[in-house]
Amino acid sequence: VGYDLAGLVTGSEGNLAFATAIVVRLLPRPESVRTLLALFGSALDAGDACSAIIGAGIVPAALEFVDRHVIEALRGAGFLDYPSDAAAVVLVEVEGLAEQTADEAARVHAVLLERGATEVRVAESAAERARLWAGRKGAAGAMGHLAPNYYIQDGVVPRSRMVEVLARIEEIAERERLRIVNVFHAGDGNLHPTVVFDAREAGMVERVVEAGAQILRACVDVGGTLSGEHGIGLEKQAYLDWVMTAEDQAAQRALKRAFDPAMRLNPGKPFSGPGGLGVAGAGV
Amino acid sequence: VGYDLAGLVTGSEGNLAFATAIVVRLLPRPESVRTLLALFGSALDAGDACSAIIGAGIVPAALEFVDRHVIEALRGAGFLDYPSDAAAVVLVEVEGLAEQTADEAARVHAVLLERGATEVRVAESAAERARLWAGRKGAAGAMGHLAPNYYIQDGVVPRSRMVEVLARIEEIAERERLRIVNVFHAGDGNLHPTVVFDAREAGMVERVVEAGAQILRACVDVGGTLSGEHGIGLEKQAYLDWVMTAEDQAAQRALKRAFDPAMRLNPGKPFSGPGGLGVAGAGV
Repeated sequence: VGYDLAGLVTGSEGNLAFATAIVVRLLPRPESVRTLLALFGSALDAGDACSAIIGAGIVPAALEFVDRHVIEALRGAGFLDYPSDAAAVVLVEVEGLAEQTADEAARVHAVLLERGATEVRVAESAAERARLWAGRKGAAGAMGHLAPNYYIQDGVVPRSRMVEVLARIEEIAERERLRIVNVFHAGDGNLHPTVVFDAREAGMVERVVEAGAQILRACVDVGGTLSGEHGIGLEKQAYLDWVMTAEDQAAQRALKRAFDPAMRLNPGKPFSGPGGLGVAGAGV
Repeated sequence: VGYDLAGLVTGSEGNLAFATAIVVRLLPRPESVRTLLALFGSALDAGDACSAIIGAGIVPAALEFVDRHVIEALRGAGFLDYPSDAAAVVLVEVEGLAEQTADEAARVHAVLLERGATEVRVAESAAERARLWAGRKGAAGAMGHLAPNYYIQDGVVPRSRMVEVLARIEEIAERERLRIVNVFHAGDGNLHPTVVFDAREAGMVERVVEAGAQILRACVDVGGTLSGEHGIGLEKQAYLDWVMTAEDQAAQRALKRAFDPAMRLNPGKPFSGPGGLGVAGAGV
């Protein structure tokens, strides 16, 4: 009864309302979980394997990608499970009924080998599962072994275009003489290219932000969008025109105004500006 | 990126926008379907069995309830599969992987017997499945065998309160000297109590609409709401105060106005009025 405000407020970046209570739906814990980790000699092969798993109709609970820069960072932090000669690691987890996960894990295993995995590790216990995950979970914390600062992007691309965009990101890194590392949720096409840098170098922050814009442009060019899970915030308002027409943005502003006519909620965030293609308080 | 308009426009009763294109997600057809049909000597037992199936953590693809009035109508229409001495029929369908449906069908079967089913039929072929469904699918068409007119309600109740509300509906029928038949989606607590009547009788339509209001009140009293799938439209605007505060309704009206300031879309439908607790053009 009434318009669906739960869907509207979810993901609205605190722009429309305060949540004073949240009702959640509990799902039963899956009966069975299977975790596989594959090593690849090529990042593009690894990306291609991720696309192929999805293309096979499997929807893993997790499908995570870790590139050679992250492996280097992890090894620097003392985590030696991922070998230094691997160009990428792909972690896959399927969950559900035992029969289903056995079948899906076997199919994932076959796809990984077919697409060039040099080694596939399968967790046989909870402890082994935790060990396969340790690198992925430690990735963000290990970045400091590459450089003092990092800038993490959050773009999304159709899962069938991931390999192409990874190649574009590598080109951007070379052209801009920056180090861009990749650790991301391949299962939903949600890339987190991360520029590692030293903010004390003159002009560096500007170069990094400019590279971030180029990465997002590459995502949008293949039919992706500006954010997978972290939102538009201040910074990405400058890119809204890439994905929304002026009319789209006007509708969003009208909606914002309906809930918050005095523009008091999360000021300066998307759609709180007076109109036109503008934005309050943002700038890149 | 931006507020989630798909969720907002879905179910908005044509009040906010025109849909000029719709993108849908395809789900794989389930590997296996199992269909069971149970006969009950008591409608309350049948309702209780529906609650118990949900309570057992099973989420059937279909869980349908047909009462003795509908059985009578079906028999009048020449469909004799449901015996005349049954007080209610419950149809259950589970779908998924073969192992899952075998397990769930066995559990459903046990619950149905435990809760007083006098007979459980299990489809062993596609033809048998179609035959188990035939009565449910023919119910609306058979109503004419009971009376020349029918008025179908669309209330929702928590699935744990279905039996209680079925009893309340029976009380309403007795008190108002009306025949109210029940055929509904028990799986989501979505009741469709249907008053069968003859509109040529003086004052009858008013009595029927009044009984409809009492049925909705009974749904709301146990924590349910005014509509499961058919919306508020014109008629149910009179009951909005039962489920939404004045502030809730003001927020809904602000939202409507943001998309349709001139109130041109589906005029007279919910939240198109000028404010207050009022409603444009509705009346019961």
